[in-house]
Amino acid sequence: MAVKTASFEKTIRALLEEKKYQTLKDVLVTMEPADIAGIIQNLEDERLPLLFRLLPKETAAETFAELEPELQELLIRGFSDRELCDLMSELYVDDAADLVEEMPANVVKRILAQTDPQMRREINEILRFPENSAGSIMTTEYVSLRPKMTVAEAITRIRRTGVDKETIYTCYVTEERKLLGSVSVKDLLLCPDDSTPVSEIMDENVISVNTLTDQEEVAKMLSKYNFLALPVVDNDARMVGIVTFDDAMDVLVEETTEDIEKMAGMLPSEKTYLRSGAWDLFRHRIPWLMLLMISATFTGMIITGFEDALAAQVVLTAFIPMLMDTGGNSGSQASVTIIRALSLGELELNDLPRVVWKEIRTATLCGIALAVICFGKIMLVDRLLLGNTDITVLTAFVVCLTMAVTVLIAKLVGCTLPMGAKKLGFDPAVMASPFITTIVDALSLLVYFGIARALLPI
Amino acid sequence: MAVKTASFEKTIRALLEEKKYQTLKDVLVTMEPADIAGIIQNLEDERLPLLFRLLPKETAAETFAELEPELQELLIRGFSDRELCDLMSELYVDDAADLVEEMPANVVKRILAQTDPQMRREINEILRFPENSAGSIMTTEYVSLRPKMTVAEAITRIRRTGVDKETIYTCYVTEERKLLGSVSVKDLLLCPDDSTPVSEIMDENVISVNTLTDQEEVAKMLSKYNFLALPVVDNDARMVGIVTFDDAMDVLVEETTEDIEKMAGMLPSEKTYLRSGAWDLFRHRIPWLMLLMISATFTGMIITGFEDALAAQVVLTAFIPMLMDTGGNSGSQASVTIIRALSLGELELNDLPRVVWKEIRTATLCGIALAVICFGKIMLVDRLLLGNTDITVLTAFVVCLTMAVTVLIAKLVGCTLPMGAKKLGFDPAVMASPFITTIVDALSLLVYFGIARALLPI
Repeated sequence: MAVKTASFEKTIRALLEEKKYQTLKDVLVTMEPADIAGIIQNLEDERLPLLFRLLPKETAAETFAELEPELQELLIRGFSDRELCDLMSELYVDDAADLVEEMPANVVKRILAQTDPQMRREINEILRFPENSAGSIMTTEYVSLRPKMTVAEAITRIRRTGVDKETIYTCYVTEERKLLGSVSVKDLLLCPDDSTPVSEIMDENVISVNTLTDQEEVAKMLSKYNFLALPVVDNDARMVGIVTFDDAMDVLVEETTEDIEKMAGMLPSEKTYLRSGAWDLFRHRIPWLMLLMISATFTGMIITGFEDALAAQVVLTAFIPMLMDTGGNSGSQASVTIIRALSLGELELNDLPRVVWKEIRTATLCGIALAVICFGKIMLVDRLLLGNTDITVLTAFVVCLTMAVTVLIAKLVGCTLPMGAKKLGFDPAVMASPFITTIVDALSLLVYFGIARALLPI
Repeated sequence: MAVKTASFEKTIRALLEEKKYQTLKDVLVTMEPADIAGIIQNLEDERLPLLFRLLPKETAAETFAELEPELQELLIRGFSDRELCDLMSELYVDDAADLVEEMPANVVKRILAQTDPQMRREINEILRFPENSAGSIMTTEYVSLRPKMTVAEAITRIRRTGVDKETIYTCYVTEERKLLGSVSVKDLLLCPDDSTPVSEIMDENVISVNTLTDQEEVAKMLSKYNFLALPVVDNDARMVGIVTFDDAMDVLVEETTEDIEKMAGMLPSEKTYLRSGAWDLFRHRIPWLMLLMISATFTGMIITGFEDALAAQVVLTAFIPMLMDTGGNSGSQASVTIIRALSLGELELNDLPRVVWKEIRTATLCGIALAVICFGKIMLVDRLLLGNTDITVLTAFVVCLTMAVTVLIAKLVGCTLPMGAKKLGFDPAVMASPFITTIVDALSLLVYFGIARALLPI
């Protein structure tokens, strides 16, 4: 795909250069809006409006909806009122609402002036809902049917009103705006008798979400049930809109990116990497770095407290990085697995005892395997091969015992912290490697020096 | 959702207990297959077949497709030939192919014996394709139209053949199995003139994938273009099947989980956490732990090499964990951001210079901020508050300078390694925190001791 878009881009640049606008039109008409948007993003700003004006109206609107806010603003500032009005009448209302939300106040004023009153009302309705709620990502353009309509009447209604709807394939049966059931175009088309009332073939067990349901939950429900759309109802069970599967897919991808960012100790960002400046990246990365650096004061204090021991057995220092890293890695394996399972709904909070028991057994296996290999490595590589004669069998034993205990502690911390965070209502994703590493570092040092004190002559 | 399913489960258990099968039937009929599957997973094995037999045929097949392979096998072993035959005739062919792939040989033999020859042929066709290819996740049940059909004829054909198709909403226009175009039910229904030939309203610029295209790429294309389905063609451009959006959503979630597992230094697993035994977890986690432990030999060697310096300035040891952790965290922030951006297609390989420049500026900002705060922390907390009088202004300066340099190195390693891996054809996800940490640890120690040697009296 990437190659295809890149070669397309070359062609389009060349055609723009040579002012072959008719050819350009012919080429653009064969392309998907998402691909055109991809090319537009990379064009020089002054060429953008030109290319955009060559697109057929509907494609132009779909392409526009795919662009980043900066480019949308740039295009709108270049549009005549007429062009803006055309664009607004072609946009789906959920995309229009997104646009109004993103633009600066003076642009919004111009946009709303060029929007017909009905759509303006619908945009305002969507904007009433809090960010990341079902209401904020829904569209109000869906097909509604009445229960008494026959199948033939329903199909006629779809044919008459369907052109502006984001999906016609799932229709909603309502009476006085109350949601009674849903019926798919498949059900309607495959119904052998055209005069059957819709109420007879509709599915009355409609799963719906509230306007305030979190968008991530809506997306997960769409994905779980394989629905094309989910109806959104208000607190009085009146239907107000639908969320379609394509928006759900976008939400899933976005939310996963946020989780991954949090797991790596960053504040989640809404901008793509290339569109984020160094200052943005700095702002999103520095808080956790700062916090983790400061909390490393504890590890420093522990080492200072054992300075005499370290001075007596200098060789112990050499194994600190290995013990800390193995502990950190073991802990982050457990925490990341648990965080993902929680996020996919594979784990519930009351699974904690099973999780802990599983991690104890896994940690025991990992700990023994690592300790045995580590012992061999220390005696063969560090002592024999590298000739570090300060290393005794007892030192190696202390290191390997610490290793096994550290792995156990790390896995336990790694699995309990995310579940504890969830229990307390925090986001489990924050309890990932950087945080776990810092805790496990301190614990592993305490274990190390404790064991060393007990077994070595210090 | 979770709460709802849990309470449902209690009801269903109670009804099973009291043998109220009719009530149970009435309750089950209102439920979605995904929810029924969720409850079945938690039931005792001996109750499973009983509950399953209460489901209407179609729901039973859809529920069956949602179950884990272990439970599918258990159910099949309990089925009569008649029941198995019913199930197979209701399953979509792609789910049937998945089933045949997962079951042990003797079960497969029974399954195929109860499958009608046409479906058996289609299952075999799907199974020919390599795992994770478009061919392996496609279904062969789609609606095909001829270019000369009128809109009315097309609708009639959909009504006649649509019942068994996984989606009827996108139809494919073929001639001698060559893919000529696509037409949606929306286009057909909204076409004002029923006698228009399909060839006039079809979209000839159909985006298709090859049978061997990787499933992840297929999923990303479906998500990018917001299509309901993508046609799959063979090397002779003949249409062989379609991949639908719901399968694409599942693929996206699975592939993301794999990426996250790799990023945390684990081999990706196909089983969910609760279904993985301690031994499975051990096998997936130990290779990276072992590799990273062994590679920590280098950090040990570096410390051993500077043992004299450390003995002269014991206070330096206390800052090793902080420097290593800050380096590791900085590096994993950069690598995880880059890995995710590569995976979402937001970054291309030729963006490397821009990435490096952005990371240099970010690292400079982070490095300076961390160094300044760290200097203050060392002088105020470690020296004044904790009374560690071994710490001089010069020591603090050495630590903070190392910190700034380490952050820069870490960010550079963190952004270049994933892109380098991609360039060489490896999976960038492997170049995440555990791997980066090990490299950055070694580099940061070298920098630390280098700077200490130059500035301190050792």
